[in-house]
Amino acid sequence: MSKNIPLVKDIGENGLISIIRAKVAGGVRLPVEIGDDAFVAGISKNYSLAVTTDILVENTHFRRDWSSPRDIGYKAIAVNISDLAAMGDCKPRYCLVGLALPGNTPVDFVKKLYTGMNESARKWNAKICGGDTVKSEKDIVISITLIGEIKNGAAITRGGAQVGDYIAVTGTFGDSAGGLFILKNKVKINAASRRYLLKKHCLPEPRLDASRRLAKTGTITGMIDSSDGLAASLRCIGEESCVGARIDLDRVPVSPHLRHLCRTGTPPLISTVLTGGEEYELVFTFPASAAAAVKKALPEATVIGTITAGREIKYYVKEQSYPLPSSEFRHFA
Amino acid sequence: MSKNIPLVKDIGENGLISIIRAKVAGGVRLPVEIGDDAFVAGISKNYSLAVTTDILVENTHFRRDWSSPRDIGYKAIAVNISDLAAMGDCKPRYCLVGLALPGNTPVDFVKKLYTGMNESARKWNAKICGGDTVKSEKDIVISITLIGEIKNGAAITRGGAQVGDYIAVTGTFGDSAGGLFILKNKVKINAASRRYLLKKHCLPEPRLDASRRLAKTGTITGMIDSSDGLAASLRCIGEESCVGARIDLDRVPVSPHLRHLCRTGTPPLISTVLTGGEEYELVFTFPASAAAAVKKALPEATVIGTITAGREIKYYVKEQSYPLPSSEFRHFA
Repeated sequence: MSKNIPLVKDIGENGLISIIRAKVAGGVRLPVEIGDDAFVAGISKNYSLAVTTDILVENTHFRRDWSSPRDIGYKAIAVNISDLAAMGDCKPRYCLVGLALPGNTPVDFVKKLYTGMNESARKWNAKICGGDTVKSEKDIVISITLIGEIKNGAAITRGGAQVGDYIAVTGTFGDSAGGLFILKNKVKINAASRRYLLKKHCLPEPRLDASRRLAKTGTITGMIDSSDGLAASLRCIGEESCVGARIDLDRVPVSPHLRHLCRTGTPPLISTVLTGGEEYELVFTFPASAAAAVKKALPEATVIGTITAGREIKYYVKEQSYPLPSSEFRHFA
Repeated sequence: MSKNIPLVKDIGENGLISIIRAKVAGGVRLPVEIGDDAFVAGISKNYSLAVTTDILVENTHFRRDWSSPRDIGYKAIAVNISDLAAMGDCKPRYCLVGLALPGNTPVDFVKKLYTGMNESARKWNAKICGGDTVKSEKDIVISITLIGEIKNGAAITRGGAQVGDYIAVTGTFGDSAGGLFILKNKVKINAASRRYLLKKHCLPEPRLDASRRLAKTGTITGMIDSSDGLAASLRCIGEESCVGARIDLDRVPVSPHLRHLCRTGTPPLISTVLTGGEEYELVFTFPASAAAAVKKALPEATVIGTITAGREIKYYVKEQSYPLPSSEFRHFA
């Protein structure tokens, strides 16, 4: 606590979300409320809206000397598509863009930002339909709201994992954090790995198609994207489903490029893999009996552990328990 | 132009919106697209979504030394309700709140902000369902997205005014700008007027009910809220409807409190009335033949002029043409 007055940085994002949830509780109950990747609200006999919003702040979420305006725009939409993907078989439809800009922002930045946003939106069949542009004093702030359509009752939340379920993931972990490390530090690394890791950081691809294929199996009990890192995603599933997990670190997929970057121990491989944020893979659970169906739907998915009773997320290397590195990404810190 | 590189402040909000509209053009055509108070998109056989977003930046749109956190929250939702009201008989439903906060923001600020937002949302039957909280470096930024429901084909845009239509308004004009003037300057004014003008600035009431009553007449051809001031609203209707207007300044409603504030000529009454922003009245048009129906539906509305051919908005005092004061509010200036 700073001087007795509690500040946002003292309680962090989770503390804030608890306060906000309590404040807005009550009223009509929705199928999925505040605290998941998106909220879901019925709109017709067959369909619900799935809606998500993300705020991106210059120098916190992007830097103009690290990313082109087009890439910043592309990623801003992509990370919201990822939130919809985390809800299951969801069709992105409409997108709103709020922009706060200092007066000295070049017009060209805005044009190229929209080129990237438009490209990204169209790729996933969403349309930019509205927005707001205002003046800020210092920071460029990009606020994206994405509205998708999902069949009634089809939303997959973070809260449905059952003891005994398998935990699986798409893609590899730590690559985006590896890319960020390269941007922040002087690093000796081969050109292909540099290119690969930077692309994973600057131009992430949400797993909308993988999510659709998984949802169609009708067996997925819990799902989340890994935008705050793998460990945070697992903790969310654990908390919302009132369960624990056992993760076999040897099974967590890691790219050869990240191994190459981490070959000297800096950055450390395991904590990069577990706590690196801005990753947009899917982390999902399903009963053991559905393993064959899931494998058929998404052969490239990797099982990394199982849901356990109790409330702890435990990491293992072989049969050795491994303490979670404490460098976990924290907003407001 | 600043040093050959065009900046956002050189082209202003209208220039930006033109660029953005061109960038996102194409794809599925919606009933109401970017550039109106809200966009409207079909979702079922009977209903469409009306969606609007607003970004509020500390020190541009609100100041913590001028407004309580509760009032800031209340107004943040209210101004978005006003955008939905400007679309006609629209039911606010779901609300998303994006918050960018410096780490040193007191937790208490966030709590009270949500108290105000919640109060405001519930008053108009909307529910805060989701959002995002992130860290900013300096500015507090509040991004609100509001989703409403409107009958298919019922949206009233800025683009339907016809030559000969009457132009009418709700409420009085310039009060919010008067309140802002009091906050910015040492002003001698009686307590009742001070209270009234400050309230109009800090706690505006959107005209949702008036809009419903007007829409039910089925005669409203064009509508907009006056968030950027009366003159800007009239210019928008003119541009989007490809018409001009004749406004009788004597008929524009002015509160006795604003007259009292402006009694010495500072601030000047007419430019405060015409160009003062952050006002959330309705400006709307209808054929002369509907005058009786409109008067019955909304007795407190005031006719202030008529739509004319040509593209100019002309202001008159008696039969004397009056030049528009140039102090019009400009974003990014």
